[in-house]
Amino acid sequence: MPFPALLKPLLVAGALTLLGSAPALADTADARPALRGTGDLGVVIERATGSVALVDTTAKRVLRHVEGLGDLSHASVKFSRDARYAFVFGRDGGLTRLDLLEGEIAGRVMQSGNSIGGAISQDGRFVAVSNYEPGGVKVFDAETLELVVDVPADYRTADGTTAQSKVVGVVDAPGNRFVFSLFEAGEIWVLDMSGDEPALTKYRNVGSQPYDALITANGRYYIAGLFGEDGMALLDLWHPERGVTRILPDYGRGEARLPVYKMPHLEGWAMAGDQAFFPAVGRHEVLVADTDDWSLSGRIPVQGQPIFVMSRPDERQVWVTFAHPDNDRVQVIDTETHEVIETLSPGESVLHKEFTARGEHIWVSARDSDTVTVYDTRTFEALATLNAESPSGIFFTHRAHRIGL
Amino acid sequence: MPFPALLKPLLVAGALTLLGSAPALADTADARPALRGTGDLGVVIERATGSVALVDTTAKRVLRHVEGLGDLSHASVKFSRDARYAFVFGRDGGLTRLDLLEGEIAGRVMQSGNSIGGAISQDGRFVAVSNYEPGGVKVFDAETLELVVDVPADYRTADGTTAQSKVVGVVDAPGNRFVFSLFEAGEIWVLDMSGDEPALTKYRNVGSQPYDALITANGRYYIAGLFGEDGMALLDLWHPERGVTRILPDYGRGEARLPVYKMPHLEGWAMAGDQAFFPAVGRHEVLVADTDDWSLSGRIPVQGQPIFVMSRPDERQVWVTFAHPDNDRVQVIDTETHEVIETLSPGESVLHKEFTARGEHIWVSARDSDTVTVYDTRTFEALATLNAESPSGIFFTHRAHRIGL
Repeated sequence: MPFPALLKPLLVAGALTLLGSAPALADTADARPALRGTGDLGVVIERATGSVALVDTTAKRVLRHVEGLGDLSHASVKFSRDARYAFVFGRDGGLTRLDLLEGEIAGRVMQSGNSIGGAISQDGRFVAVSNYEPGGVKVFDAETLELVVDVPADYRTADGTTAQSKVVGVVDAPGNRFVFSLFEAGEIWVLDMSGDEPALTKYRNVGSQPYDALITANGRYYIAGLFGEDGMALLDLWHPERGVTRILPDYGRGEARLPVYKMPHLEGWAMAGDQAFFPAVGRHEVLVADTDDWSLSGRIPVQGQPIFVMSRPDERQVWVTFAHPDNDRVQVIDTETHEVIETLSPGESVLHKEFTARGEHIWVSARDSDTVTVYDTRTFEALATLNAESPSGIFFTHRAHRIGL
Repeated sequence: MPFPALLKPLLVAGALTLLGSAPALADTADARPALRGTGDLGVVIERATGSVALVDTTAKRVLRHVEGLGDLSHASVKFSRDARYAFVFGRDGGLTRLDLLEGEIAGRVMQSGNSIGGAISQDGRFVAVSNYEPGGVKVFDAETLELVVDVPADYRTADGTTAQSKVVGVVDAPGNRFVFSLFEAGEIWVLDMSGDEPALTKYRNVGSQPYDALITANGRYYIAGLFGEDGMALLDLWHPERGVTRILPDYGRGEARLPVYKMPHLEGWAMAGDQAFFPAVGRHEVLVADTDDWSLSGRIPVQGQPIFVMSRPDERQVWVTFAHPDNDRVQVIDTETHEVIETLSPGESVLHKEFTARGEHIWVSARDSDTVTVYDTRTFEALATLNAESPSGIFFTHRAHRIGL
């Protein structure tokens, strides 16, 4: 074996699947962290303390906590092309570049007063952040965090003045493009970073108040949910000349039979074959659409108002988290029978979940229990329970290699 | 920046996208390699010299060559769960564990006299190798390369004696299973490694001489090509109780209008939505099947006998390599129009190609030109040409995170 003796203990530890307390990342013999692959690393957002937990999905443990990331409510994470760096998008406009190997912050900019997520370009060179205050999108160099492009979300209001719109649902698309939605303006914009100069295309009057969006796993369809009316706005990126069309006309608050505790996340759409599973708004249902024509094809009763609906990588199961007051349970749906086959109770205020790349495990965060539970997705056995400070979002490095994640 | 000064040059170099000569992996200040993420690394097989080239897909360069891997004709590669180690399956029965960070061999066993590929289990703990001489499958511990399970491919011959069958088409499947085919026996076996004891299920009389196989990206369908008759054998792993069925009854040599220079690789099937693109046998055509019922739905004329048919990750393009004597060209098919939209000439004896994880680039090996060319898949511009010794297979670490790759 070619490894220096000092490294062996960490290498062996990294290989076992059930270990106790976490070792430090750093090799004890000197200041340099141990060599390790970055394919089985992840980040858990600890919103209450403005920190993140760096995790190892092979050892199923927390490697260390990193503090100083600001307001992390609704924070999300993207990963660099080499899966070494995590880009953490904070609610306070902070963009933090986190070195997963050093376990330290490797760059941080306060790029706006209020932001809501970001994306990394197909080639890994650019990081885009969508902002609320002021509205717009800023694009940064992924290495240096230097500002590359500033795209103010200017639009003409009803009274003829120009204002800035909040921007939501920014995603990466093939061709080194970023796609995002303007809440007040009701527009979808495409920013093409593939040429020497950025090119911006605007789609107007797509619907009232797009509040979130997703892009399908193949990067073809960009779908925005509408807060101000029913239905959703769809842009087929293979045929931009067709413009933005409307799908699922009944989708939204108009059909709600119950008070809406929280608008569902669209990022959570689960694709399985030609079925899309997604959360109903204000109803105890998971909806199913046929992705060939985006028509509604099914309704699945569940135990609460669904928030995140995520597909196991092999598409055989869909896992669902819920809004208050039913957010202490997680349900599992069989994508073939559309039946709920399991209900789990991971803790109080379950906020997020993440599958390992090939789907053998899922990690579930329970904010008010300060725990992250790792389940076997075949047996539903709880394999490990990790301590974290008010954990919310969970993000694994394999996202670096997926379109739209 | 938290990096020790000594590391900075390498870290910066790793970030640029157009660099000159390749630095060594090792930090010049001491014996230890520089820290780096492993998400943008890859391995290029150099069959003539029994070596591999370690490559960086961000810098588009060769990092170093590693020798001593034996006979690498038809060699293939799988990656460890953490994307640090490559498992190289040599034709001579050698199984080599390669450390991509140290740039050295981290374990090697001669596990048979003649082997033809392998797989790594969903949980990353087990590596399976399919063998020709003697026939069978051996499963090794991914850390130590210690033998865990030996599965001889015994079967009863026509004259009632027991013999060992060559094993082909071993893949990983969800549920920590390995699936493989027995050439002489005409059987498909499923080895379940999820329990305390391995469990083996045998499907007999699946067809004459299965010679290669694939598993779909969601891990549901295992499809074996038949050398001894037309048609293909399909096992639906969601419904093993249905047994093995026959699909594409006309597929094979029976419809060949031309001499068959080489049986196509099934690993190369390209899935795009509900279409599967795959090579015709002995014909200048790429065939298209409807994955809903696995019926033949189209034929696309191409410039030679196709060998590998691979889909760009966004499913908008399919790239095709060809058998001798047309193996100096690569063609690109639009998956929507089914038209050939580009023909490229990367060099002599084009053997393999690999897309970057999100599809912005493709790397193409030209064995007799000793080059690997990196193309932009949108503009078809050649971005870089790397030197390698008779390069064949190209494998990037993002495969660690995909079912069946």
